[in-house]
Amino acid sequence: MFEARLAQGALLKKVVEAIKDLIEDANFDCNSSGFSLQAMDSSHVSLVALSLRADGFEHYRCDRNVSMGMKLASLSKILKCANGDDAITMKSEDNGDTITFMFESPEQERLSEFDLKLMDIDSEHLGIPDNEYDATVKLPAAEFQRIVKDLSTIGDTVEISVTKDAVKFGTTGDIGNANIMCRQNKAADKPDESTEIDINEAVSLTFALRYLNSFAKATPLSTHAVLKLSKELPILVEYHIPEVGRLAFYLAPKIEDEDSMRD
Amino acid sequence: MFEARLAQGALLKKVVEAIKDLIEDANFDCNSSGFSLQAMDSSHVSLVALSLRADGFEHYRCDRNVSMGMKLASLSKILKCANGDDAITMKSEDNGDTITFMFESPEQERLSEFDLKLMDIDSEHLGIPDNEYDATVKLPAAEFQRIVKDLSTIGDTVEISVTKDAVKFGTTGDIGNANIMCRQNKAADKPDESTEIDINEAVSLTFALRYLNSFAKATPLSTHAVLKLSKELPILVEYHIPEVGRLAFYLAPKIEDEDSMRD
Amino acid sequence: MFEARLAQGALLKKVVEAIKDLIEDANFDCNSSGFSLQAMDSSHVSLVALSLRADGFEHYRCDRNVSMGMKLASLSKILKCANGDDAITMKSEDNGDTITFMFESPEQERLSEFDLKLMDIDSEHLGIPDNEYDATVKLPAAEFQRIVKDLSTIGDTVEISVTKDAVKFGTTGDIGNANIMCRQNKAADKPDESTEIDINEAVSLTFALRYLNSFAKATPLSTHAVLKLSKELPILVEYHIPEVGRLAFYLAPKIEDEDSMRD
Repeated sequence: MFEARLAQGALLKKVVEAIKDLIEDANFDCNSSGFSLQAMDSSHVSLVALSLRADGFEHYRCDRNVSMGMKLASLSKILKCANGDDAITMKSEDNGDTITFMFESPEQERLSEFDLKLMDIDSEHLGIPDNEYDATVKLPAAEFQRIVKDLSTIGDTVEISVTKDAVKFGTTGDIGNANIMCRQNKAADKPDESTEIDINEAVSLTFALRYLNSFAKATPLSTHAVLKLSKELPILVEYHIPEVGRLAFYLAPKIEDEDSMRD
Repeated sequence: MFEARLAQGALLKKVVEAIKDLIEDANFDCNSSGFSLQAMDSSHVSLVALSLRADGFEHYRCDRNVSMGMKLASLSKILKCANGDDAITMKSEDNGDTITFMFESPEQERLSEFDLKLMDIDSEHLGIPDNEYDATVKLPAAEFQRIVKDLSTIGDTVEISVTKDAVKFGTTGDIGNANIMCRQNKAADKPDESTEIDINEAVSLTFALRYLNSFAKATPLSTHAVLKLSKELPILVEYHIPEVGRLAFYLAPKIEDEDSMRD
Repeated sequence: MFEARLAQGALLKKVVEAIKDLIEDANFDCNSSGFSLQAMDSSHVSLVALSLRADGFEHYRCDRNVSMGMKLASLSKILKCANGDDAITMKSEDNGDTITFMFESPEQERLSEFDLKLMDIDSEHLGIPDNEYDATVKLPAAEFQRIVKDLSTIGDTVEISVTKDAVKFGTTGDIGNANIMCRQNKAADKPDESTEIDINEAVSLTFALRYLNSFAKATPLSTHAVLKLSKELPILVEYHIPEVGRLAFYLAPKIEDEDSMRD
């Protein structure tokens, strides 16, 4: 059987809210080391990878590896019924066809149980190579969200250029063009507002804003978003969930000129 | 003539907001003992009963019994023009064809007068028997609203089961099923959060969530909702309006099996 | 070249939000004395006049008179990308075909540049005579906004009547009629809430509520709205922008009876 209890249930709500518009249904994989998910978005352009470590749960038990297929919209409906301060316990019998979500209010005067029917979902587990990246930018998650939202009002794609001191986000559209530059800023006194750049090589890549906007729905999970970029590789956008795990998104860059790729 | 002044006009706004989606138009009955309304919802499934006592008004005068037909949507439009801290006076001449709403701001620098045309509405006054109930549950109004809203995302009906120590709300839908249990909880230190159960006999009845959701729009009127249930009787959902009166809703239970009813 | 820097960039955002639903596109005129705009709304019924004085800017340079045509919806999109506490600099080369908006965050760690394409717009500059008015009413801007919004739920036009002690707003519609009266109120201790009336002659004029509602979108710019009325003249609704300038709207009264006009 599988049973896992998260004292801060709000975290699970935020994870599902962050991915439910990108992914229609997915298998959640549970094993002794933790609870994870890996799925392509419905248009097969981006990849979502979630992992919550067993030791991040207050209580975690998984007798044998199990893969539970869920419709994200249904899961979201159920988790919306949890209060922000409820503890959430997930439970499933081996070979069961449902997963139970139990919500307990802090003073135990309210106890809710929701059974969600599981689905059979075909999926292949993709091996994600553990790449080294040319440039890593760690910036406030809300700032990243704001930037991709703002640029989306002007254009469809964003060119992200990282140099030693700054990261620049640029777009072009019918009404004109836009460039937003964030300077490196260690902000020792306000660590939540720091922007840190770690670079081996300057890099400049172009991405569809639509997907970055979806990724940015993970903003409530973390103070910072971490962008990892390398020439010709998908960008990795990471949200660290303190003490529990991480939610990561991958998106291939737009290639403007086929020939230049072959160099 | 009829004239009644409510220092806390916001209360009248809340009453109308609570019933305007359920009832299209209705007669408001005024007599020397108070201001009341009784009406079936537009689909003739539930019943609304409002009563505001004469002594709950700052000033109240009603020379002869009068029944004033109003379109709730129009009444709501007008009351939305009152500020939350305005005093509201209602006035109508005998045999007049309008009712006047006067809004006074606390410092009297703004005075508004709205005349609403009255309508002729056919209605029969239903005698509501003063039943004894098997079970009475008094729970925080916001909690009740939350529960029926949450369950509506899963199913269409709710089974309410009351035992000595707890009330349970259950539903079933396409994606799975849900059960929310609230334990008795006197909460002596936080009386607004108490859940109190008074029971002669355990009872379990099923209702359409759609109507309970409408009733719950009365939440701003009161700290608690009171549910009164008896086998084979409509549920009574009551909101007490401190020092002024009450708003009550009646809804017949769903009968799952004709035969079991005949026992 | 033209270059102007506004430390409180939020002000520019508010100006554009206030007029963008009224005006589709317009020429902004810059000369050594300041930055201004004058335009009829798209249905040619009301007139908008904005003026921001050169000395209201932190930095202002305008080498030669220039008229820059912009689509208000595009301008609004760009200004929405500025944070509330950003400084905004506008820049345009002589004979350039774009205007650049530069947003700087207070601690300079974020710098955004948006280039907006300019348009050729035919417009004639109307001479607005500097009228004397029979009555001037200065009332809290939020109060004025509230009144025209409330009355719009009842009727289409408002009769504004000013006497020595009060201003009255009245409307009539299908469901009934409404009158809101605001008394003169110097409010020495709360100057933001004062209502002041200055009158040579009592005046009563009728206007389309739809336009007054649009004008009231300027509410965030100023604590007060100033209404200036004279018989047979358009109403002037003014919002003073402290230390920088003003935004003014003109709207012709409705004439109910041709004959009475000829007296």
